[in-house]
Amino acid sequence: QRRRPPQHAQARPVSASALQPSDTFPRRHNSATPADQADMAAACGFPTLDALIDATVPAAIRAPPMRFAGSMFDAGLTEAQMVAHMQRLASMNKAYKSFIGMGYYGTHVPAVILRNLMENPAWYTQYTPYQAEIAQGRLESLLNYQTMVADLTALPMSNASLLDEATAAAEAMAMCDAILRGKKKTFLIDSSCHPQTIDVCRTRAAGFGIHVRVVADDAAKGFGFGFDYSGGDVCGVLVQYPGTEGEVRDYAQLVKDAHAHGAKVVMATDLLALTTLRPPGEIGADIAVGSAQRFGVPMGYGGPHAAFLATSQEYKRLMPGRIIGVSVDSTGKPALRMAMQTREQHIRRDKATSNICTAQALLANMAAMYAVYHGPAGLKAIADRVHGLAATFAHGLKKLGTVTVQELPFFDTVKVTCSDARAIAKEAVKNEMNLRVVDANTITVAFDETTTLEDVDKLFKVFNNGKSVSFTAESLAPEVSSPIPSSLARESPYLTHPIFNMYHTEHELLRYLHKLQSKDLSLCHSMIPLGSCTMKLNATVEMMPVTYPTFADLHPFAPTDQAAGYHEMFDDLGDLLCKITGFDSFSLQPNAGAAGEYAGLMVIRAYHNSRGDHHRDVCIIPVSAHGTNPASAAMVGMKIVAVGTDSKGNINIEELRKAAEANKDNLAALMVTYPSTHGVYEEGIDEICRIIHDNGGQVYMDGANMNAQVGLTSPGFIGADVCHLNLHKTFCIPHGGGGPGMGPIGVKKHLAPFLPSHPVVPTGGFPLPEKTDPLGTIAAAPWGSALILPISYTYIAMMGSQGLTDASKIAILNANYMAKRLEKHYPVLFRGVNGTVAHEFIIDLRGFKATAGIEPEDVAKRLMDYGFHAPTMSWPVPGTLMIEPTESESKAELDRFCDALISIREEIAQIENGKADALNNVLKGAPHPPQLLMSDTWTKPYSREYAAFPAAWLRGAKFWPTTGRVDNVYGDRNLICTLQQASQATEEAAAAATA
Amino acid sequence: QRRRPPQHAQARPVSASALQPSDTFPRRHNSATPADQADMAAACGFPTLDALIDATVPAAIRAPPMRFAGSMFDAGLTEAQMVAHMQRLASMNKAYKSFIGMGYYGTHVPAVILRNLMENPAWYTQYTPYQAEIAQGRLESLLNYQTMVADLTALPMSNASLLDEATAAAEAMAMCDAILRGKKKTFLIDSSCHPQTIDVCRTRAAGFGIHVRVVADDAAKGFGFGFDYSGGDVCGVLVQYPGTEGEVRDYAQLVKDAHAHGAKVVMATDLLALTTLRPPGEIGADIAVGSAQRFGVPMGYGGPHAAFLATSQEYKRLMPGRIIGVSVDSTGKPALRMAMQTREQHIRRDKATSNICTAQALLANMAAMYAVYHGPAGLKAIADRVHGLAATFAHGLKKLGTVTVQELPFFDTVKVTCSDARAIAKEAVKNEMNLRVVDANTITVAFDETTTLEDVDKLFKVFNNGKSVSFTAESLAPEVSSPIPSSLARESPYLTHPIFNMYHTEHELLRYLHKLQSKDLSLCHSMIPLGSCTMKLNATVEMMPVTYPTFADLHPFAPTDQAAGYHEMFDDLGDLLCKITGFDSFSLQPNAGAAGEYAGLMVIRAYHNSRGDHHRDVCIIPVSAHGTNPASAAMVGMKIVAVGTDSKGNINIEELRKAAEANKDNLAALMVTYPSTHGVYEEGIDEICRIIHDNGGQVYMDGANMNAQVGLTSPGFIGADVCHLNLHKTFCIPHGGGGPGMGPIGVKKHLAPFLPSHPVVPTGGFPLPEKTDPLGTIAAAPWGSALILPISYTYIAMMGSQGLTDASKIAILNANYMAKRLEKHYPVLFRGVNGTVAHEFIIDLRGFKATAGIEPEDVAKRLMDYGFHAPTMSWPVPGTLMIEPTESESKAELDRFCDALISIREEIAQIENGKADALNNVLKGAPHPPQLLMSDTWTKPYSREYAAFPAAWLRGAKFWPTTGRVDNVYGDRNLICTLQQASQATEEAAAAATA
Ligand SMILES: Cc1ncc(COP(=O)(O)O)c(C=O)c1O
Ligand SMILES: Cc1ncc(COP(=O)(O)O)c(C=O)c1O
Ligand SMILES: O=C([O-])O
Repeated sequence: QRRRPPQHAQARPVSASALQPSDTFPRRHNSATPADQADMAAACGFPTLDALIDATVPAAIRAPPMRFAGSMFDAGLTEAQMVAHMQRLASMNKAYKSFIGMGYYGTHVPAVILRNLMENPAWYTQYTPYQAEIAQGRLESLLNYQTMVADLTALPMSNASLLDEATAAAEAMAMCDAILRGKKKTFLIDSSCHPQTIDVCRTRAAGFGIHVRVVADDAAKGFGFGFDYSGGDVCGVLVQYPGTEGEVRDYAQLVKDAHAHGAKVVMATDLLALTTLRPPGEIGADIAVGSAQRFGVPMGYGGPHAAFLATSQEYKRLMPGRIIGVSVDSTGKPALRMAMQTREQHIRRDKATSNICTAQALLANMAAMYAVYHGPAGLKAIADRVHGLAATFAHGLKKLGTVTVQELPFFDTVKVTCSDARAIAKEAVKNEMNLRVVDANTITVAFDETTTLEDVDKLFKVFNNGKSVSFTAESLAPEVSSPIPSSLARESPYLTHPIFNMYHTEHELLRYLHKLQSKDLSLCHSMIPLGSCTMKLNATVEMMPVTYPTFADLHPFAPTDQAAGYHEMFDDLGDLLCKITGFDSFSLQPNAGAAGEYAGLMVIRAYHNSRGDHHRDVCIIPVSAHGTNPASAAMVGMKIVAVGTDSKGNINIEELRKAAEANKDNLAALMVTYPSTHGVYEEGIDEICRIIHDNGGQVYMDGANMNAQVGLTSPGFIGADVCHLNLHKTFCIPHGGGGPGMGPIGVKKHLAPFLPSHPVVPTGGFPLPEKTDPLGTIAAAPWGSALILPISYTYIAMMGSQGLTDASKIAILNANYMAKRLEKHYPVLFRGVNGTVAHEFIIDLRGFKATAGIEPEDVAKRLMDYGFHAPTMSWPVPGTLMIEPTESESKAELDRFCDALISIREEIAQIENGKADALNNVLKGAPHPPQLLMSDTWTKPYSREYAAFPAAWLRGAKFWPTTGRVDNVYGDRNLICTLQQASQATEEAAAAATA
Repeated sequence: QRRRPPQHAQARPVSASALQPSDTFPRRHNSATPADQADMAAACGFPTLDALIDATVPAAIRAPPMRFAGSMFDAGLTEAQMVAHMQRLASMNKAYKSFIGMGYYGTHVPAVILRNLMENPAWYTQYTPYQAEIAQGRLESLLNYQTMVADLTALPMSNASLLDEATAAAEAMAMCDAILRGKKKTFLIDSSCHPQTIDVCRTRAAGFGIHVRVVADDAAKGFGFGFDYSGGDVCGVLVQYPGTEGEVRDYAQLVKDAHAHGAKVVMATDLLALTTLRPPGEIGADIAVGSAQRFGVPMGYGGPHAAFLATSQEYKRLMPGRIIGVSVDSTGKPALRMAMQTREQHIRRDKATSNICTAQALLANMAAMYAVYHGPAGLKAIADRVHGLAATFAHGLKKLGTVTVQELPFFDTVKVTCSDARAIAKEAVKNEMNLRVVDANTITVAFDETTTLEDVDKLFKVFNNGKSVSFTAESLAPEVSSPIPSSLARESPYLTHPIFNMYHTEHELLRYLHKLQSKDLSLCHSMIPLGSCTMKLNATVEMMPVTYPTFADLHPFAPTDQAAGYHEMFDDLGDLLCKITGFDSFSLQPNAGAAGEYAGLMVIRAYHNSRGDHHRDVCIIPVSAHGTNPASAAMVGMKIVAVGTDSKGNINIEELRKAAEANKDNLAALMVTYPSTHGVYEEGIDEICRIIHDNGGQVYMDGANMNAQVGLTSPGFIGADVCHLNLHKTFCIPHGGGGPGMGPIGVKKHLAPFLPSHPVVPTGGFPLPEKTDPLGTIAAAPWGSALILPISYTYIAMMGSQGLTDASKIAILNANYMAKRLEKHYPVLFRGVNGTVAHEFIIDLRGFKATAGIEPEDVAKRLMDYGFHAPTMSWPVPGTLMIEPTESESKAELDRFCDALISIREEIAQIENGKADALNNVLKGAPHPPQLLMSDTWTKPYSREYAAFPAAWLRGAKFWPTTGRVDNVYGDRNLICTLQQASQATEEAAAAATA
């Protein structure tokens, strides 16, 4: 036999499209395949998905197809292309060693925390711990955080994080105002505070009618005597400890004086320094604020980081932000939960002094774990080393004699006067080091955990005009002693709780992290269909750049030419967001949704003022608005006029018209959420905008529901003037168990000049308008939490304009599909004119109160037994659940969730028809943790197996709640917000030790 | 009051040592603090840790303090310094695009798999799934792997991975030999196999007495007719499909011919190609082997990757390696476990044809998840694209006419003849692309998932002498058709099981990964004290470089100057390992411990042969040796002479002396483990080595217990000539649920010339001896699983010589502390002369059989209820547990484990004294999964709570087994090794869908 000739190839042509990369992203993010889409649309009664969308989104506001004209991202990059692009941007950033200080310090993120917390979706995809029984892990960690802050500041009450140090100071200012019941309207700020802190307070003061006076330290009068209380109008003073230029001063006398004049004392401080310095609480401060960044959270070009606020027992109920507290569960065992939760979404509305909602939970957890890992002695060793390096540096400089070293005590920052500060800084940059140039003749050099002896040697050379010096830092050490006076040395212990003293090896910390993680439900387990929260996929490719060193390790005040990668991204992102929203410019500064609201209203305020309309201060807000809306309006000093909704959940247009016309001389703004918080595309939205404009007002759109707009319509198209985006909702920043988030604001052209800037690094809108007239400063960092912007950026870039548009359509499809399945079992509240819902919908549970004694909470807790997190509960309508599936959930997952709710409906029916006990049933008994289900005595009238495995899928793998139902009332009545010796963890440790 | 002058600093001098970086590594890795050490030594009856060590390690072999003289690693780098160093090495590697092929292909690791599996300690720190009830997650994933291989090869039985494609081919060769019962000793290999496959088979054949003939395809005779069976001695043939140079040939006739002559057919193949090509099983192959690397596992400069081997039902019991099978648990529900486990540690000893033990589980899981994520259609799309790009390239080259394109059909690799292959390759390198130069006039270009149309365009330019061409790949596409003949096109379906068709979005896969993870106990949960396995900390910093792109994305045959970072590491690592072991040179090729044993014995064989001592073929092996020892000896063709142990567990020296003397003319080697597998430092080890040397033998030391030697003694110091190290034990490579591992071998100077080389990239010992005479090739890749070497390297570099020495001491301390606590409750078998144990020890459970009917398995399963993985069971002594705590476990964790065992002892006592039923008790009933504990009917005589929470610490957080006890016998009798339609997953899916 002869070799067979190669057989002729079949006519199987290669198609050009088959040669395109196959790792496209939208099919991984958007769940429904084309076949699914057709099926689900049919289930909803529509021939196609597009027909469903057309029936849902009002034609009047339907924008032409979205395209990113001229952008390489229009078609969407593949995952591989995206990674390559981000690596290129990363390589354009230069992570020079920072000695800038000013609230941002180099730190080593312990690798075990980096990998198992920061890079771990089981931590970062968690939701805010409203549902305590499936959140005991992060609740414990946040309690650790509060304990750490309370111990180090020596003030007993701490919250579970604020947005940044500067806004924390502003929150403290508002507290002082509130403590004094608004009767004293002057707030004094020492000039040794960080410039961004001063500016944020100054900006924030305006809306409260507080007069900020920045007081330069008057050397002639001694500390504290530059402060003048003579007007009798001072509610508080803010000092910084150590000061921004490093000075460590004794504030004892200042505190006495302030208190003698009825003023409260706020100290901005530094946790690392407090391991060595007498803490604020012992000096008599009323409130301490600061940033926990240097506890193992990367600088990230400005954020995100956890800020803290601690105060005395006296003022605890005025503390802003979320607070974790100890309570008990249904079996009487200690259990944690968010204290005073009712404050959260029903914030004191127009009486609010704070609008904070999303905070910095993930970063607070990182900082807390850093303290757990190092323990008190480890932190002290780090502090001593940083201090020792600073002291050695100062000593060496004196020896060199090229500059003059300040004589004040310092902790980590050395201040020098010199003949040419800029020349020295330039020499430093040549050596890949950044110094702070305070003025032409002043430099400060701040040391941190990452500084090495070799760095100090390099600095000596820099300060010696680039010439070698005759000594080394190491050789100097024996001659150096600490410049901190003994009167300011800390003597009290801290972090004495066992938790800070038992997890110091990597294995121990690894297991502690995993133990906590295993208690918390996250998107790794199941869908979290929280209405208004858009818990969509946080794809890994999006998360990867966050921990690239040259994104993570940049100081926000580093020369911008060292951040070219970041700035290319800012420019791109501003441009893309403008295209998506129909706006002309974006500010990337506000670092949460509520911060965006506040910033947006401040823009409107600045705009009116610029036109001489200082009197325009009325803000119309529908009653259905999120609590942050009125809170933000109150904070900018606006008067709130509420308008109601009609039976369909839509804004009552006639009422709105009347309100607008009645206030037309003073109308400042309308705040409106679109689609509405009721999950409906209101038909009248364009008219609403017109009414406001016709009456001299500006339209502020709350962009929380942007996930129902992208590619279909846009705030700009609809007629809004300004809008914030919750990048942690629509644009894929994970919720992190309660933060971080980002709330950039987009504006129309006429508002662009007023976008916030920054006192250290001037900034403004992207793109930058020709003329600028910034309203002030909104956040500590020029570009907010810059480190997480790559998440939204990569999402947009990989989805492309079509993928994003499809996402909106599928989000709407998924909601309608679920509503359709559920409407046979639960009343669905509110629909659009064609009977469809938007990207979320509300089911009404109010009837069950009467028929079965069942409250929404019972359904929420029972859902845990099915392995699910409850939807948004009793907001915006009490007695309901609001369900938002997002586009990332598969039909199988939607069905599973519907099955659970339908099964629960049957459980309710059992009560209604008397087959189950009205007080003692699976809903009232929920959730059922394993300890309960396995207890020897079982007295429930229903079966264990039915309690545990009410659905077939639970037998294969189930996420277990770890406590019985947590008692909120008990906890609020006995507010305990730090680790107790009798806490669960201690008990366990004790049990283990003695067993 | 005047400004207070700055207070005088206290005399608090700064100490130079306090200025050194504080992020030192040893205190994170080694658990016991100095205070712990003192306490624990005291508990063991010694004044200090050093006194304990002195009493434990025989003085005769105690080496002087270990120092890494001249190495910057002697003092140990800090974590931050290490990261910087590895980033520097990474930057020295160049990840050019590879078109080399030859079994290694670019692939996109899906980011969700990268982060949640490859970079996830909850997956990579798992142990081999011996304890099925706490390993159902990875067992399911490995079953997916087997199913994927079986489906794609169309051969029904697959194992759960082998080490690499070349050794898999060698294993298949040994199978052919075994199938033919050793009666036909010729194995034919087609020359179209990869050169490394041919060389590994050739090397491996020697020990089996198999004659390998490499048959060049004889074009004149047609396919299959170069094979000559006329001697009647052929047991098997090995062909490659597609061939190494890309050719796709129809082997139907060849199979017929081979079978007609009683020879078996092995096909080395490629899973991606099999989505489009008629599969081996349908062509009639008996065995298929290959690598699953290109299914989402990075090339990693050679490994680790999962190789596969599939065969027919007929030969399933001859399959080497681990096999996952379906069985049932105590409640009758389907449950998975390793089939035919008894093979594992008691391998057929001297009758063995394979010694494989550690395999590539983690990589098999990655590949399986890649298939789950892409699904059959997704894989086909990738294959079509790769094929289309290759076809387009070939078409373009024909158009260009600068070279001649081969006329054979191909899948992904295009072969060309040209006038100057090297010149073209050089031009390609200029463009950061690597081609394969086959010979001066032949080049092949292999395409893969990462190739883009732009790459093809670049290649056109390269093949056009760097000049632009007039067309683009995209423009050509419409003219191109597939070169694969229809007779070779695949028609049968594959991956039809629901698991491959339901997890195609990132959320779905994320949750599937987490669902499986949650079923598996790992080092994230608790200590895994497996004797002989050294389950120590796998620190995050060690793991980080493994996923740096410029370590991960290098082809092993890339020009070595593109791998300068790797080679600096190889040189350093060879040097450090030599210092640690007292050897003169190291081979980094063997990619598991057993592979190291085999390689080491082959070195000894080569050495004897080089001296004309061809007859030296007797290997003395103590009966206490690990099963791999005799298996390895058998595989190199040695005759095994067993020697016994005395009552203390030591080798019977007199018996050994007699054996050595009796065999002195033919003595080849002794294989000895030190400290012994019984956990004792035998006093006579130096004498033992002398006896062997005096009788002309070489000493092979099994380095599995190296964790008790480092810094205290060394194989070289003791007198060994060669030794393998299990880097996945002592040197921190995580076990990955059953691999990867690395088994480099160290040798004394006289053996260094014989260390393995490689046919494609010649290599040898590190440092390289002057003269080389390599024994052949041991593994597919020149430096084995190079990608995981950074783990061991960074461990050594961060620990420094002192940290490593302390690790050994603390490992010994921890074992002695546990033995001390447990000896009051369990007999401790075997101790050294001073009553101490080494780094592990054995507790004897044999007595309980008589007193309580309790077997070791009952204790092992009951440990799961306490949240622990059992120690090594019934090896090396049946009826015992061998406990190895390692230095990374804290005293608290050791105590917890002891508490559990002590509590179990009390449970046994309850049976002994009649308080508990002999047949129906907590031990026999263990483990107790939640489903069982919560069942409505509870018929056990003991309480639910006692079954579930026998220790206080379990109430806080407990790891739950997910099935009742798995029935091994049932499973082995009904061997099912692929996903079944009736499997659990399907049931669940069905239940969910219809609920
Ligand atoms: C409608 C609406 N507006 C504003 C906010 C506040 O956003 P943030 O929590 O980011 O401050 C939310 C948060 O849930 C919201 O749902
Ligand atoms: C003493 C001993 N030798 C050899 C081996 C084989 O090593 P590997 O599993 O890496 O092939 C083992 C594995 O546990 C062992 O314990
Ligand atoms: O696999 C082992 O034999 O440890």
